[in-house]
Amino acid sequence: MYKLKRNERIAAMVKILSYQPNKIFTLNYFTEKFNSAKSTISEDIVIVKQTMEKMELGRIETFSGAAGGVKYIPQTSNSKNKEVLTGICSQLQNPNRILPGGFLYMTDIIFDPITTNNLGEIFASQLNYKNVDYIITVETKGIPIAMMVAKAMNLPLVILRRDSRVTEGSTISINYISGSSGNIQKMSLSKRAIKPNSTVIIIDDFMKGGGTAKGMTDMMKDINVEVQDVGVLISTKEPSKKLIDKYVPLLILEEVKAEEGIINIYPNPEII
Amino acid sequence: MYKLKRNERIAAMVKILSYQPNKIFTLNYFTEKFNSAKSTISEDIVIVKQTMEKMELGRIETFSGAAGGVKYIPQTSNSKNKEVLTGICSQLQNPNRILPGGFLYMTDIIFDPITTNNLGEIFASQLNYKNVDYIITVETKGIPIAMMVAKAMNLPLVILRRDSRVTEGSTISINYISGSSGNIQKMSLSKRAIKPNSTVIIIDDFMKGGGTAKGMTDMMKDINVEVQDVGVLISTKEPSKKLIDKYVPLLILEEVKAEEGIINIYPNPEII
Repeated sequence: MYKLKRNERIAAMVKILSYQPNKIFTLNYFTEKFNSAKSTISEDIVIVKQTMEKMELGRIETFSGAAGGVKYIPQTSNSKNKEVLTGICSQLQNPNRILPGGFLYMTDIIFDPITTNNLGEIFASQLNYKNVDYIITVETKGIPIAMMVAKAMNLPLVILRRDSRVTEGSTISINYISGSSGNIQKMSLSKRAIKPNSTVIIIDDFMKGGGTAKGMTDMMKDINVEVQDVGVLISTKEPSKKLIDKYVPLLILEEVKAEEGIINIYPNPEII
Repeated sequence: MYKLKRNERIAAMVKILSYQPNKIFTLNYFTEKFNSAKSTISEDIVIVKQTMEKMELGRIETFSGAAGGVKYIPQTSNSKNKEVLTGICSQLQNPNRILPGGFLYMTDIIFDPITTNNLGEIFASQLNYKNVDYIITVETKGIPIAMMVAKAMNLPLVILRRDSRVTEGSTISINYISGSSGNIQKMSLSKRAIKPNSTVIIIDDFMKGGGTAKGMTDMMKDINVEVQDVGVLISTKEPSKKLIDKYVPLLILEEVKAEEGIINIYPNPEII
């Protein structure tokens, strides 16, 4: 078999590791794939590790011992966060986005793959997911972001549905009161989707009163599942007291003045 | 500024290019980022290109001239397709997945980030998206796969909703008949979501009669949008005549014998 040069091994290694963040690859995987000695692969890993750190492109973690290996961990710098988040704010500040009722049209932004991929890495850099088993969200608009968070953390995604579906098997449901509208809403979860005594992170696109996040948290409590953290793309500044205490917003929406066409939104100052 | 070594430039370049597939980076982007001459960067790109091809990790395309640059294109080999798709089939063949009515529980598989990421690259390798403007899907189960297709192709995702929502602005809706159940269903689309005279690819997780894909195609025709292709993860073998003629399935579901616990599903033989 053709022996790869160091440049070639490094190119292939970076592609393989960064394509599947947080997946552990054994050294044997690379010695076999590249037909190289373990010591050679270890040297390659050091170069990759140093470069990712120097260029702020993420982290490489190595594990020694029998279960040893290497994995890539997404890690965004505050300056990268600022670049991504202020970019989203500039887009959102366009008055044409104001909809009747003072809502903002934002699906084009949160369904854009480069944006959501970046948001996934930012959430993965801000939330501790070391002992987390699932990312959960409720349909529909938060799903693309939640999927990219799941990818960055290498965790399965679970989607709560508004209706129970025959393709989900038996489900549990709760009714909850939406914090912003005061309406009663329903969420349902397939009983197969989450193992008991798991730990989850909730991801959603928007939080005003916190009713949806509270509803998800209550449902998790009912099935003995711990919510470790809640991440939302946008949190409104008011009401400052939400129905849940602990959450990490990436953007703060201070106000929408529909008549003047003013949208005051900015990145969470703690992460830029 | 510190000058990067070739190994380091190649590591960073592979990370940057493969993180945003189908996004064109100018050579100037890399000469500035790496503080290197254009001729040096060009040599780096040749090494990256040859390695990606040799290791079947995708393709690198370069463009010369004023608008010149380089991009990474996901490209899966038939043997990679076979590995991913037979892996999914093995999981789906577990009789515990059979639900009342002969449905299969599969949300854990199609919401798994590594699986969906791979499926996104497989679809990008099978479908021609050269002149395509959007990936469209209908909520809910197909969204994670469609998002990963959108990422692999670097195209915006558009999600058709079952109900029209205030956060979507004004919408257009159609009623259609589900090919499998015969029920009347509704889909709605924000008028802002798709520019007129665009071209789209439809992605969905499951096709039986083809009614949903037909409904989406009809809606696109109504707004002067061309459907270039339809990609579905699973297509049932029967009925062999679907309501749409042209579609690309990754898996064929031949039958589910609920009593015997037999699930006959296999990869589309044309792509493995």
